[in-house]
Amino acid sequence: MKKVQFDIKTLKQMDYDELNVLAYRIREEIIRVVSLNGGHLSANLGVVELEMALMRYFDFPHDKLLIDVGHQSYTYKLLSGRRLDTLRKKNGISGFQKRDESPYDVFEAGHSSTSLSAALGMAIARDLKKEKYNIIALIGDASIVNGMALEALNDIGQQNHKIIIVLNDNDMSVSKTVGAIQNHSRNFSSVYERFGLDYIGPVNGHNIKKLESAFEEACKREKSVVIHAYTEKGKGYSFAREDTLGVFHGIKPFKVQTGEQIDTHPMQTSYSSFFGSLVEEYMEENDRVTLICPAMVLGSGLINVYNHFPSRCFDVGIAEEHAVTLAAGMALNGIKPIVSIYSTFLQRAFDQLSHDVCRMNLDVLLLIDRAGLVGEDGETHQGLYDEGFIFNTPNIVLTAPSDMKTSRALFELSKKYHGPFAIRYPRSYFRGDDKDGHLSLEFGKWLCPYSKDDAQIALITYGSLVDLLVDEIKKENLKVTLYNAVFLKPYDTEALHQMLDKKHIFIMNSMATRHGFVQEIEDYLIKEGYQGQIHTYYVPDSFVKQASIKEQLADNKVDYVYLMSEIKKYL
Amino acid sequence: MKKVQFDIKTLKQMDYDELNVLAYRIREEIIRVVSLNGGHLSANLGVVELEMALMRYFDFPHDKLLIDVGHQSYTYKLLSGRRLDTLRKKNGISGFQKRDESPYDVFEAGHSSTSLSAALGMAIARDLKKEKYNIIALIGDASIVNGMALEALNDIGQQNHKIIIVLNDNDMSVSKTVGAIQNHSRNFSSVYERFGLDYIGPVNGHNIKKLESAFEEACKREKSVVIHAYTEKGKGYSFAREDTLGVFHGIKPFKVQTGEQIDTHPMQTSYSSFFGSLVEEYMEENDRVTLICPAMVLGSGLINVYNHFPSRCFDVGIAEEHAVTLAAGMALNGIKPIVSIYSTFLQRAFDQLSHDVCRMNLDVLLLIDRAGLVGEDGETHQGLYDEGFIFNTPNIVLTAPSDMKTSRALFELSKKYHGPFAIRYPRSYFRGDDKDGHLSLEFGKWLCPYSKDDAQIALITYGSLVDLLVDEIKKENLKVTLYNAVFLKPYDTEALHQMLDKKHIFIMNSMATRHGFVQEIEDYLIKEGYQGQIHTYYVPDSFVKQASIKEQLADNKVDYVYLMSEIKKYL
Repeated sequence: MKKVQFDIKTLKQMDYDELNVLAYRIREEIIRVVSLNGGHLSANLGVVELEMALMRYFDFPHDKLLIDVGHQSYTYKLLSGRRLDTLRKKNGISGFQKRDESPYDVFEAGHSSTSLSAALGMAIARDLKKEKYNIIALIGDASIVNGMALEALNDIGQQNHKIIIVLNDNDMSVSKTVGAIQNHSRNFSSVYERFGLDYIGPVNGHNIKKLESAFEEACKREKSVVIHAYTEKGKGYSFAREDTLGVFHGIKPFKVQTGEQIDTHPMQTSYSSFFGSLVEEYMEENDRVTLICPAMVLGSGLINVYNHFPSRCFDVGIAEEHAVTLAAGMALNGIKPIVSIYSTFLQRAFDQLSHDVCRMNLDVLLLIDRAGLVGEDGETHQGLYDEGFIFNTPNIVLTAPSDMKTSRALFELSKKYHGPFAIRYPRSYFRGDDKDGHLSLEFGKWLCPYSKDDAQIALITYGSLVDLLVDEIKKENLKVTLYNAVFLKPYDTEALHQMLDKKHIFIMNSMATRHGFVQEIEDYLIKEGYQGQIHTYYVPDSFVKQASIKEQLADNKVDYVYLMSEIKKYL
Repeated sequence: MKKVQFDIKTLKQMDYDELNVLAYRIREEIIRVVSLNGGHLSANLGVVELEMALMRYFDFPHDKLLIDVGHQSYTYKLLSGRRLDTLRKKNGISGFQKRDESPYDVFEAGHSSTSLSAALGMAIARDLKKEKYNIIALIGDASIVNGMALEALNDIGQQNHKIIIVLNDNDMSVSKTVGAIQNHSRNFSSVYERFGLDYIGPVNGHNIKKLESAFEEACKREKSVVIHAYTEKGKGYSFAREDTLGVFHGIKPFKVQTGEQIDTHPMQTSYSSFFGSLVEEYMEENDRVTLICPAMVLGSGLINVYNHFPSRCFDVGIAEEHAVTLAAGMALNGIKPIVSIYSTFLQRAFDQLSHDVCRMNLDVLLLIDRAGLVGEDGETHQGLYDEGFIFNTPNIVLTAPSDMKTSRALFELSKKYHGPFAIRYPRSYFRGDDKDGHLSLEFGKWLCPYSKDDAQIALITYGSLVDLLVDEIKKENLKVTLYNAVFLKPYDTEALHQMLDKKHIFIMNSMATRHGFVQEIEDYLIKEGYQGQIHTYYVPDSFVKQASIKEQLADNKVDYVYLMSEIKKYL
């Protein structure tokens, strides 16, 4: 057997036996790279033949392929001439389609369910320019039932601009716990004709020959068409195939032989899992508390809660808009809902948060996970924007813990509060635990973990940065008073008044842009007539590219090393 | 015939002949009030019998009624004991359901398609609390195909928490020009069973007896159920019934006898209609320009454009998420799309604007209509928040005209620019025209319509406020230099540098909160070491209640009278 080559030309010349070998080699390569770099494993193993068949039958990039969410594009990347070794690394190959990486990538996404709208827009453009080629959207069964995909389907069916939709139905979504999607994907398939689309299938998504026939058939149709392909998520790697929780959906580095994840933070607790345990305690003590999570149950550390309270936990799938207004409905009727959502996905529910939850001033607790810089997923997943739009939304309280104790204390306060209350926390781990006693917080008051009577520098910051800075400042015995802004909104005006006589006030935010806490505090200080110098540090306005979180903090000058060097300039 | 009473008790005792008379009287009252106050006419005339039947059959407020969008609640308001005379006036009856108005209003909306999610949330709460009553969502055929309503349907079908959905199908949407919705509403009806819901109908929505039977049937069902009722929009008022453009959807005061709207601004051009004409010119001169509008074609002044260029204009219905990513797709493939959207509805597409359009830095022109305070629609419709989230979105340019000339000049600049470009303008009228010559703007540069060499006050503002302030300042020959910030982002750093030696800098924004332009300019001035006093004025953080725009400006201290008085304090 000759050496297998990963390129389109070879792919198109192979016979079906050779293709089987190639599929095997591709899976081997994907497993190898993801085991080293982390990444989206299961979805990629599921679409190997599907992307091979697409690349054999169609003429990319003359024809256009839009991969929904983009995280299952590894086969496509390999076969269009990209090596995956630097996958998800700084300056490396992206985990998603990326236009500046290859002419084969004509589209980019990271959030789901955008490919149908974009494909229709591209088809309209093609037809207006009187060009001829195929436009194909490859989309999963979980993504296609999101609201914006359904809006697109409703429009595609009545537009005379043809696209081909390849529905990758692995009947699984991110994790097997998602009932809604599971029950409905098959049910839903026969709905496409009602939307005015042609339907071809179901077809075995691992049979390249049959897929090619389906593509041929689809090209003959006049109307837009859905090809319904069944695939097996995690195919070719037993640990991923048998994974029902979604562990291998987006995975950290792991050992190939055992499927065991390499523990990057041994003995440490993540913010996600700790908040998961707080939610579990709360639901245990109060049977009028519910939990809503759009699809990210495992990532948000909520598996135990879902298992423990199945009738009070709702995984609505990739449906952020519905999730937030569902919570509004519960709150309107005397139940206290907790919505656990990633910062980046909360962007999808900005209107629902404002128009429904906050305008009606409803008693909803929002756990905003993955706030701040998120690392390897890069530009599409940064949690940098929720702070800004929450500052611009009336009624809601916004808080941020800095460690395990403040996490628990803020969570306790939220129970007593009536109205929208949000806690934002990073994709990160606690340095310690909360074994050395209980902390009680007063509503709206900041903490002052380090102070010097004669300090001429006041430093305001929040989040994980607090402990790091306190350690450094203590170590060097610096004349600085440091405030831990556990309440971002409302902020602590009393604390701010106490620092009006300081020569310097530093406002440091490593978890958002300036359009939120930083500018709000600055604005307040000006209004109060502060005469000293204000120094602000924050993540700059840009879509921050993939790298490790550590690299992103350093590159954007919001890591504690840089911030310490800035403080020292004024001592 | 005895005098007709508008109350539930009487309603429940009437025979069907008496009900016909009552329906007539209700329509008469609705027409009378809307002709005086303005409001949503057609939709309300269409649901008179539907709401009468609901109120006869069900036991509100023990049972719960959620009226989607809420603007078609006039019959429900009348029959639950509210007089409509103060409809949409300051401190008067809201044009939408409002909880503080009546125990009969258990829900509030103004944006469409939220009722299904909220109803399901309420049903889950009811069942957890082991309470017994019906929860009914009344929703129109245009609203139910919005993404979040479809997400809710997908969830309702698999939840064991019963709700009753009454689909008010008038086959019309906001205006008859909306093809997508029209073609699909009937098609879609039979889809409900695929979603796992029971289906009853179609039933004549003007036949109270038949509606009552349908409700009885719906109550017997175990599962959530859709009752599909056909109604006639504008029924009982010939001008509204025969209106195919949507003129009587949301209407200003009009003459009942002739259907003629009372021209509140004779001889004046609205921002909407002027931008409509600019779009039309652009599409005339460049056949690679398209227009996308989610449902608000008439309100956005675009009827002529749609008639003129049917193959390049896309009304996607109430589908803001799809609208924005559809534009992204077109731009990815070499077409220049213009998206015309109300500020308040752009909130629904924040993620698409950020993740799709701006992250990929695509050449999309965004016309943000109804920015700022919007008047009688009140809290749910204020255009106060787009500025803040656009400041927090990388890559996009944000501009704001102050008159007809700057509108045209900014529009011309947008044609030459490559990337996301937004123009935000108010629900307002121009004071003059642009007959006295052409204005050319330089990218990123502000205008200085009034300056005094020895002025110690610099005033930065934008929008319609500019001309009003210039007039007053001129009249009184005040020592002020006024800048017209036509570019909000990027702002004019050169102009800002010129004012660093002034004693006072006033930043006045009557079209947004402080979380955008105001804080950004303040932030810049601080960074540049400005030593004088900064005075800022803006719409405060709150959901601004219904009143006329004039009243809202005055009540929130952002009208020119108040601002002038503030400036004079420092002269």
